Amino acid sequence: MKKIITISREYGSGGRLIGKLVAESLGYDFYDKEIIDMAAQESGLSPDFIKKTEQNLSSGFLYNLLLGSSYSGTANGASSINGTQMLPLADQVFNAERKVILDLAKKGNCVIVGRCADYILNTSDEIDSKSLLNVFIYGNLEEKLKRIEDLYKEPEQAAKKTIQQIDKRRANHYNTFTEATWGDRKNYDIMINSSTAGIEETARLISEIAKHQ
Amino acid sequence: MKKIITISREYGSGGRLIGKLVAESLGYDFYDKEIIDMAAQESGLSPDFIKKTEQNLSSGFLYNLLLGSSYSGTANGASSINGTQMLPLADQVFNAERKVILDLAKKGNCVIVGRCADYILNTSDEIDSKSLLNVFIYGNLEEKLKRIEDLYKEPEQAAKKTIQQIDKRRANHYNTFTEATWGDRKNYDIMINSSTAGIEETARLISEIAKHQ
Repeated sequence: MKKIITISREYGSGGRLIGKLVAESLGYDFYDKEIIDMAAQESGLSPDFIKKTEQNLSSGFLYNLLLGSSYSGTANGASSINGTQMLPLADQVFNAERKVILDLAKKGNCVIVGRCADYILNTSDEIDSKSLLNVFIYGNLEEKLKRIEDLYKEPEQAAKKTIQQIDKRRANHYNTFTEATWGDRKNYDIMINSSTAGIEETARLISEIAKHQ
Repeated sequence: MKKIITISREYGSGGRLIGKLVAESLGYDFYDKEIIDMAAQESGLSPDFIKKTEQNLSSGFLYNLLLGSSYSGTANGASSINGTQMLPLADQVFNAERKVILDLAKKGNCVIVGRCADYILNTSDEIDSKSLLNVFIYGNLEEKLKRIEDLYKEPEQAAKKTIQQIDKRRANHYNTFTEATWGDRKNYDIMINSSTAGIEETARLISEIAKHQ
């Protein structure tokens, strides 16, 4: 029985919904954006700031944002405000989310979406790898476009661009904060094309795997 | 019900055996090296030559092999022997294997290992994509090394090199003859790490998917 399931996903693949259905089917807790508020409590940073950090993960953006001229970066990436040493804010956000994810995983019976949870849990000594199932959900372009058009009323050309941008952002975030590559099969126990069987059947399959492995 | 299952696999992942177990469990025919003899019959080339072509897929090797000085390649890749136009031998082998794979798939109820079968069948108008399940099997380095040591008595360092060489050869072959990239998730319906659940459980999972999707 897999007590902790992480879901990484291409934009438009329905990965988030699949994770939600898996959690419902197994009676597990589901964590996606919920992690933002928890990381805010953990770190003292505002939820809004964490959300923006997640959405604009370029270090340039973060350094520039940091209190204007009173900020000075150092060679090892640490920052200082009025002489007080601190980690760059992006690292603070990552560390806070990391701590939240580890705490949730230690309690178990949960599905966690995104936020490098697969890598964080794979590399933690505190997590038994036998209780962990790392899943990557992807899809065919045609089905992803259809899904985005249906859900967000975005026309095809715009949706194509959104897919590229959001997947690039997800890859950048992952590749910046881990020593692995987003979407590289090495990180996952299973990778499933949700276009093949559809959202509900894919969720059913993952629940079955979690129960029997 | 998926009537045609293709298995692509990393060396040492047990993909071949998994395919065999899936075929047994579903009562399907299993094709791996069997395709060599069938392609020989199809093309008039000898099974030995096809085997060598599969194992040494660099065009340099093939061109050099081709009857020494009486061979002359042309700008468009065609060859001529004593003035008779012919396809390069590597293409002849690929085309013969392609025809065999299409014929097998049209009959259905089969598991086919390697030989770009996923791409050949994905891109053929003659195959209903709903009856096709393209699977990629991979594994953790540690488990792959252990498997190769157990099966072939190869010590760890040699096995590491063999994995690299054979996977590189498989990628080269695939990338040469298709317009896709070996191991790229886009080509597959599902990618499974056989180290997570082991050979038999992975085979059971694929059989279940084939039955219920």
